[in-house]
Amino acid sequence: IVGTVAFDAIETPFGKTDKILGGAATYIGLASNFFNVDAAVVSVVGEDFPKEYLDLLENKGVNIEGIEIVKGGKTFFWSGKYHNDLNSRDTLVTELNVLADFNPVVPQAYKNSDVVLLGNLHPIVQSGVLNQMSERPKLVVLDTMNFWIETKFDDLKDVLSKSNILFVNNTEALMLTRKPNVMAAAKALSEMGPQVIVVKRGEYGSVLYYQNQFFVLPAYPLLDITDPTGAGDTCAAGFMGYLAKNNLEITWPNLRRACVEGSLTASFTVEDFGLNRVLTL
Amino acid sequence: IVGTVAFDAIETPFGKTDKILGGAATYIGLASNFFNVDAAVVSVVGEDFPKEYLDLLENKGVNIEGIEIVKGGKTFFWSGKYHNDLNSRDTLVTELNVLADFNPVVPQAYKNSDVVLLGNLHPIVQSGVLNQMSERPKLVVLDTMNFWIETKFDDLKDVLSKSNILFVNNTEALMLTRKPNVMAAAKALSEMGPQVIVVKRGEYGSVLYYQNQFFVLPAYPLLDITDPTGAGDTCAAGFMGYLAKNNLEITWPNLRRACVEGSLTASFTVEDFGLNRVLTL
Repeated sequence: IVGTVAFDAIETPFGKTDKILGGAATYIGLASNFFNVDAAVVSVVGEDFPKEYLDLLENKGVNIEGIEIVKGGKTFFWSGKYHNDLNSRDTLVTELNVLADFNPVVPQAYKNSDVVLLGNLHPIVQSGVLNQMSERPKLVVLDTMNFWIETKFDDLKDVLSKSNILFVNNTEALMLTRKPNVMAAAKALSEMGPQVIVVKRGEYGSVLYYQNQFFVLPAYPLLDITDPTGAGDTCAAGFMGYLAKNNLEITWPNLRRACVEGSLTASFTVEDFGLNRVLTL
Repeated sequence: IVGTVAFDAIETPFGKTDKILGGAATYIGLASNFFNVDAAVVSVVGEDFPKEYLDLLENKGVNIEGIEIVKGGKTFFWSGKYHNDLNSRDTLVTELNVLADFNPVVPQAYKNSDVVLLGNLHPIVQSGVLNQMSERPKLVVLDTMNFWIETKFDDLKDVLSKSNILFVNNTEALMLTRKPNVMAAAKALSEMGPQVIVVKRGEYGSVLYYQNQFFVLPAYPLLDITDPTGAGDTCAAGFMGYLAKNNLEITWPNLRRACVEGSLTASFTVEDFGLNRVLTL
């Protein structure tokens, strides 16, 4: 799992947090633990990052050898405020800090991993991780976001062409393909590399596409949603965790079920702020 | 069916139309024909309204005795432009014309109708129709929109309290109830009167709520969508048409199936501009 390990400060209509543990790789790592995956996180933090957070990951069975601690550096910090419908948010603060010069190093023991999950990062950093693998992984899983689509489209296309499974949100799917609807976009995305497309739609659920087949899954019907942060990350963790438990076999029934497991994992995440709910499971 | 019979001029990313036949009651009336319903439209048009349009309704089995033709008056005209994702639109022109003084008159033969479908209109006009019924209809079906929620909330609450089935879009459901998500909103809406809530979500499909049960239906996966106008109206027509064919029995299996029939009916509507596709069925 390559991605951010970070501090988040989150505000939703239901409350706000101080600086808490966040980051895509943190969410994915901790949630993949439910599926008994031998996972390692490749990331970077500053000297200000509490040892207890690293211990938490390790105690949950996540290898942290690949998390570089930069002496005198500060950890990536993101702060955001969600709108009333929780479907959109404003970024209040982005302090890249040590992430600005992140040069990922894959631990020797994980260079032959079956799965490489590339969390939302600069596409060049994502490609840099793939280049360190001793053999082509069985599955390369990619997440990205609008910022890279707008600023690093060519680099992103390159890493897309090397991916097997893409997680992308609805708006970004349309943006990447210039298609007017998610069905047309998913088909177009699959022609850019990944055979499997998972389009995340927040409260509307997700759309899975594979070999001209669509699977449309509503979100789990929660009456109370507190904080959507990490929903997409833990969805990917649940999806890949299910596939890992099933020998990474890419079949239509496996993918559909993986989609459900991803959705369920995410449904817990949003019930409380940050990782609170995930850590009670 | 009480609602607008109108001229529309529509622009989408896929083209634009001149002034064409439109209006909620037109869409609902023409689509209800697929379900062999004895339907009548109560509405108003101006002297400029072509006889061929009235003939069209009549030829499709829709009683038009309740469509008043105002001498010297002009027909309601709406013009709108859809955004690239087709999920939202700007209204370019709204000329109320004869609709401004619309005083609906229910034909004698339809005063004991089993179903009254109140299309999006001033809530006082909607209530005025109910008051003309000789007995309480088996089902009162209500559609509304943001404009009335913002400007005539008390009148709307009154007609809501007399309704059995509500069609409402996602944004309006949240607006009406001040709830943060559709599940909580549907539950709250059912406490305002209608037992059955259908929340329309455009390309995301619909959510049906009845007696603490949720049914979430994705939209039919179309690769090409040309014009969303009338999707909500023909969805209501398909929904009610199915119930009418099943003795208007409100049961959970009937409602779920009605939701599917409504969605399918709407899926045809959006394949071409205005009523073009509906009229080929």
